[in-house]
Amino acid sequence: MNQQCIFCRIVAREVQTKLVFEDEEVIAFRDISPVAPTHILIVPRVHIASVNDLDQSDAGMVGRMVLRAKEIAKEEGIASSGYRLVFNNGPDSGQVVKHLHMHLLGGRPLGGKLG
Amino acid sequence: MNQQCIFCRIVAREVQTKLVFEDEEVIAFRDISPVAPTHILIVPRVHIASVNDLDQSDAGMVGRMVLRAKEIAKEEGIASSGYRLVFNNGPDSGQVVKHLHMHLLGGRPLGGKLG
Repeated sequence: MNQQCIFCRIVAREVQTKLVFEDEEVIAFRDISPVAPTHILIVPRVHIASVNDLDQSDAGMVGRMVLRAKEIAKEEGIASSGYRLVFNNGPDSGQVVKHLHMHLLGGRPLGGKLG
Repeated sequence: MNQQCIFCRIVAREVQTKLVFEDEEVIAFRDISPVAPTHILIVPRVHIASVNDLDQSDAGMVGRMVLRAKEIAKEEGIASSGYRLVFNNGPDSGQVVKHLHMHLLGGRPLGGKLG
C-alpha cells in the first residue's frame, strides 16, 4: 500500500466510498466526477502505477478487469446500449491518479472522439 | 473466421495491411483513419464480436492485449509521454467493426474527454 495514493486508501477503507463491486483482486466504484450516466472505475487492490508498470504475470488480472466491466455493464443496464472501457497512461493521456484503473463509461451515446 | 468481417480477412491475409505486430494470438496494425500520431489497433485472431462476447477463459488473452500495447507503446516512443487504450462496445460507444479490438492512441496530448 502507498499511503500517498488515494486509490490505495480506498482499497484499505481509510477513505469511505460506496463500492459497486469488490473481490479479492479488484474493487469498483463510481468516478467522483462522472462524465456519463454510468462512469465507474475498476481498480486492482495492489498498487500498480500504470500500464507501463504491468508485467506478464499481471495479464490474467488485467483481463479479469475487462470481464468484470462486462458484468457491471449488465448490472447497470448498458450491456446492449453500449459502453467504452479506457485505460489512461501517463501525461499525454491525462492520467490523474497514479494507480492503475479502467474507466467504464456508458448510459448515453458517447463521443466518437477517442483522443 | 467470419467472411463478412474485415478484421477476420486481415487476420487471414486476404486483405493486405502492414502489421505492426503479430503472434499466434493477436495482430496489430495502424488504424485506417488515425486520430492521433500513433493510432494502432490490437486485434485477437479469433472472431469475438465485442467485450460482451468474452468469457472467463478469455481473460489471459485480453490481458495480453494490454501488455502488448505497453510493448508497442515503447517501440513507438510514447511509453513516457503517455497513451490511451480504448475498447468500444456496442452502439453508444461507436464501435464500428464487430470484431473485438483495442485502440492504442498517443503521440500528442489527448483530449481529457473520455466520452
